[in-house]
Amino acid sequence: MGRNFCLNPDDLGNKLNKKIGILGGGQLGRMLFEASIDLDVELHFMDPDPAAPCANLGASFRVGDINDKDTVVEFGKNLDIITIEIERVSRAGLDLMENQGKEVYPSANLIGIVQNKILQKGFFEEHGFPTAPFKVVKNLTEIRALNPDFPFVNKIGEGGYDGRGVSVIRSDGDMNRCFDAPGIIEEMADIQKEISVIVARNKDGEVTSFPAVEMVFDPRANLVDFLISPARVDRKVEIETEALANSLAEKMDLVGIMAIEMFLLNDGRIWINEVAPRPHNSGHQSIEGNYTSQYQQHLRAILDLPLGNTDTILPSAMVNLLGEEGYEGEPIFEGMDEILGLKGAYVHLYGKKRTKPFRKMGHVTLVDEAEDQLPGKVEMVKKILKVKS
Amino acid sequence: MGRNFCLNPDDLGNKLNKKIGILGGGQLGRMLFEASIDLDVELHFMDPDPAAPCANLGASFRVGDINDKDTVVEFGKNLDIITIEIERVSRAGLDLMENQGKEVYPSANLIGIVQNKILQKGFFEEHGFPTAPFKVVKNLTEIRALNPDFPFVNKIGEGGYDGRGVSVIRSDGDMNRCFDAPGIIEEMADIQKEISVIVARNKDGEVTSFPAVEMVFDPRANLVDFLISPARVDRKVEIETEALANSLAEKMDLVGIMAIEMFLLNDGRIWINEVAPRPHNSGHQSIEGNYTSQYQQHLRAILDLPLGNTDTILPSAMVNLLGEEGYEGEPIFEGMDEILGLKGAYVHLYGKKRTKPFRKMGHVTLVDEAEDQLPGKVEMVKKILKVKS
Repeated sequence: MGRNFCLNPDDLGNKLNKKIGILGGGQLGRMLFEASIDLDVELHFMDPDPAAPCANLGASFRVGDINDKDTVVEFGKNLDIITIEIERVSRAGLDLMENQGKEVYPSANLIGIVQNKILQKGFFEEHGFPTAPFKVVKNLTEIRALNPDFPFVNKIGEGGYDGRGVSVIRSDGDMNRCFDAPGIIEEMADIQKEISVIVARNKDGEVTSFPAVEMVFDPRANLVDFLISPARVDRKVEIETEALANSLAEKMDLVGIMAIEMFLLNDGRIWINEVAPRPHNSGHQSIEGNYTSQYQQHLRAILDLPLGNTDTILPSAMVNLLGEEGYEGEPIFEGMDEILGLKGAYVHLYGKKRTKPFRKMGHVTLVDEAEDQLPGKVEMVKKILKVKS
Repeated sequence: MGRNFCLNPDDLGNKLNKKIGILGGGQLGRMLFEASIDLDVELHFMDPDPAAPCANLGASFRVGDINDKDTVVEFGKNLDIITIEIERVSRAGLDLMENQGKEVYPSANLIGIVQNKILQKGFFEEHGFPTAPFKVVKNLTEIRALNPDFPFVNKIGEGGYDGRGVSVIRSDGDMNRCFDAPGIIEEMADIQKEISVIVARNKDGEVTSFPAVEMVFDPRANLVDFLISPARVDRKVEIETEALANSLAEKMDLVGIMAIEMFLLNDGRIWINEVAPRPHNSGHQSIEGNYTSQYQQHLRAILDLPLGNTDTILPSAMVNLLGEEGYEGEPIFEGMDEILGLKGAYVHLYGKKRTKPFRKMGHVTLVDEAEDQLPGKVEMVKKILKVKS
């Protein structure tokens, strides 16, 4: 299915007629697949869940353990490029495939750094990227011995994902929530805003960032409530976050895209919190809101195509559709009719067969010429649209 | 895969959890599939070509003759809604499925009218829609006997598609290009502009049109060269074409979408040329240029969802990527790199395995805040991007 794009006849049937394997078959893979159709490139998925969002999509879908070295290597056998839609994959499998001469993007080394918060923070420090001051710890005993000032944050080195593996320790009474495992403790950021920048870099070294987006918190629940793009920050912050993103992509020798979550502190400084070298929840809205989506950008980057323009077309907001508390089973999207009737509302369902509380079942992107209208529209969507069963 | 969208609990698992069968698996089916993923609805395709653009897409793809009654009925057996992406399908098969109680959209009756130019023109006349004055003819002898003024147009009743089945007769010497078959002769329009309006209507009777688009002709080749959206016409023409489109959708009892090709005459009048009750080449640019694409709109209409807003986001142009003359075989897209680097250029490849001269291999949509920049950008794309082999 892959086609030959060429500027020079030398490129024929070479540069771009490649089979892409994706480790993971969740919603990020699903949106990568949507972006692949118009480029006519061939995607193959592997995921442990036979009912994953990509189960019926792509040139092939295989059920398999993406954390098992041999399974990963076997999956890659007839593929040319291997990429990820989740970081929790077999590092050893990626190393082996690289040694076999396959193109692995992002590199096994970069994925390895990101898989471990100790290595990730160490990378920021070593290369002079601003991040919360931290110390590496081996276990709980060591944390106690260091006797850090409250509040502090304890992050587990390996295995922490989706908010798990992070504890905010505010007092002696919280100390039992520290991890008795290798990890880091870091100073708690005095946060003005949480920001994410998605940066892309192709093999040629071309680098480009999407405008920073802002994660808007629900002050009651202290959870990310929705995302707004572009971030409502001053030009100085825009320039600084973009420079950090581009520099980090280069220093990490990224090929693909990477989401960089940052804190804008109350004193105006910026700290890098953590990175995810793949399509990211904070880039969903680029499908409608930007000239190029993060998904097509990732494909362009790993295929060594020119990167797409990342300018904003219209301000946008993105709200995750989470399973309602108290419902488990086949999902019902209550209020969908009303949302579909709303100008500038884009519903993305992930095709998950079962809902459970807080499971990401889809998202809604809202675009509006007037950015200040977006928070109100998000409120409306959240009030009307419910995932029940 | 289909999900339950509901406003009222009564709707659960009923209104929208339907399997959709599509007769035809070409590029229009491919773009319908792209639009189906985010709604998580299940599409099944049938096409006679095992290498059709939808061959690897959808919940299933079956190779079969869409003009054979029994094959069509067999295809529909386990499906709930049947729709088309091409009009050349078995009318008898559609009738049978309707009698079995299946939902066929657009209706077998409407598809039957559109399949035959005599019936289509008769419909316009009967319901008072403006169209070129015409006479029904049985054969060449009858055309000669009528002795029409030159120039006139002869259209074959059945079997004329994609520009075939239409002859412009300018003099006695052209008379041998008339069809010796049932058809119509009509007055040749004195065309200022060719315009297309895509209208949607759902089962509830909600009707909405996309802004009119303009087909820009190449004066040398006298062929549609590219399309520009919205059409560069005055407000009066916009209002009149929209009113005609909405009224025709109602009179035809349309469920789905329909492209209505119209002539804006030099004297300012508007004539309806012909209709296609399905996604259409003249609506490709709606994917990027409008709040809702024609593809999602068609799915919304046949699923009886609220129709989407059709406003223009940015002015757009669409140019078909045709196979270059002199090349036949596996396609190579020369110049693709350069086009991918262009802000606001969207490349859509159809996944066809072989190119041949003038075959539609893909299209490029261009968006620009300044509509007057679009023709120049189209020229650039046409100069740079070539489908060879």
